[in-house]
Parts: sequence; structure tokens; C-alpha cells
Amino acid sequence: MFKDELRALVDGSDGGLASLIMDSSGIALESYARDGAPFDIDMIGIEFSVVVNSIKRATEMLEAGVAREVAVNTEKMTTIIRMLSDEYFLTLTLRPDGNLGKARYLMRTAAPRLLADL
Amino acid sequence: MFKDELRALVDGSDGGLASLIMDSSGIALESYARDGAPFDIDMIGIEFSVVVNSIKRATEMLEAGVAREVAVNTEKMTTIIRMLSDEYFLTLTLRPDGNLGKARYLMRTAAPRLLADL
Repeated sequence: MFKDELRALVDGSDGGLASLIMDSSGIALESYARDGAPFDIDMIGIEFSVVVNSIKRATEMLEAGVAREVAVNTEKMTTIIRMLSDEYFLTLTLRPDGNLGKARYLMRTAAPRLLADL
Repeated sequence: MFKDELRALVDGSDGGLASLIMDSSGIALESYARDGAPFDIDMIGIEFSVVVNSIKRATEMLEAGVAREVAVNTEKMTTIIRMLSDEYFLTLTLRPDGNLGKARYLMRTAAPRLLADL
């Protein structure tokens, strides 16, 4: 059922490649990748859990409030990371020319449904 | 002259609060904050240099290409970080309801001018 939500995110966003739910140690709870996604989806989680933890510390130090969402844009992909709770986060990776606004919207609306089952 | 560019970013973006140019160790080269910006602008640089360095490592590990831009959305602000070079980056902080698309556009067009003077 997490898988269905992840598939809907990837297939519903323009340029979606892969999506996963993971915990703050970088272990994937569930993942879904479109055929031919040009990377190892498990690596995404591990690498970005480091990023997420450094962002958490930074926002706490800045008293900027709770970090909700991070988008990382590189030459080959854009990855959006949305915090579901202190423990879990949701990622969606797009082609660099993907529709960032639509992806953010889909993730925002999926978050409460995912969180209810975590 | 860097100051003028930073002021144009803050004043030209809807909801702009502060902007700075810094090096990868977190030291600000130049900064500009609108009166009443609700945070210490120098802290932003130091905290986000940690974030930027973890993202650099993550994107290298993932062979995702060079990281170009990161946007961090929290309860109280949105900060966009744009890499100018391996050594320098540009940040622009907005109110959470600020116009992210316009801010990204202004940063993208300012980047070559700033880089030419670094």
C-alpha cells in the first residue's frame, strides 16, 4: 500500500523517476523506481539521510522552525525530500526538466495518508 | 557592487528577507538583509555551509552530476542556495509564503554576473 502511493507519485509527476520512504538512518521502508531510472535508489536514501540530518541541525540552530521540505537540483536530477515526521521522510526524484511544482503538490497531499500508516 | 546585486535579489523577490555570498567554509563575503529580518544572517551562512558540503558529497556519491541549487523550506522561512562555483555560493532567504519561482529565476540570472567578479 506504501508501494501504491509511491508509484502514484512517480507516475503522476511529470518527469518522475523514483520515490522512497525512509527512516532517519537511511534505511528504506519502501521504494519504487520507474524502469530505467539511472541510479541506485537505495543509495539515494543513504546519501540523503546525511543531508537531511545536517539540515535538521541547521534549522534548529537558526530557530527557523521545523524543516518541512528540501529540494536538491543537480545536473542529472532533482530530488525533493519531504519530512513526514521526526523519524521518516519521503523522497521523489525527477528528471532535471521535471515539473517541480506538481511534484511538491503531490507529495504534500500524499504525506498525511502515508503518515497515518507509519 | 556585490551588495547592489544582493539588494536587488532581496527587494526584487516577493517575500525576500536576506541574501549573502559565502565561501564553502561558511564565511560571508557580502550580505544584505531587509530591516527586521527575523534571524542572524551570519548564522545562516555557517549553518548552511554544513548542509551544502553534505549535499556535495551526496551528489558525488550518487554520480548525480554537479549540485546546482538547493531549496530548504521550514516553518518560518525558505532558503535557496545556489552554487556559484566549487568555492562560492549564493543564498536567498524568503518568507515561507514567498515566490520561490521568481527567486530562483533572479538567482539564476544574477549568478554569471556575480561569478565574473569573484
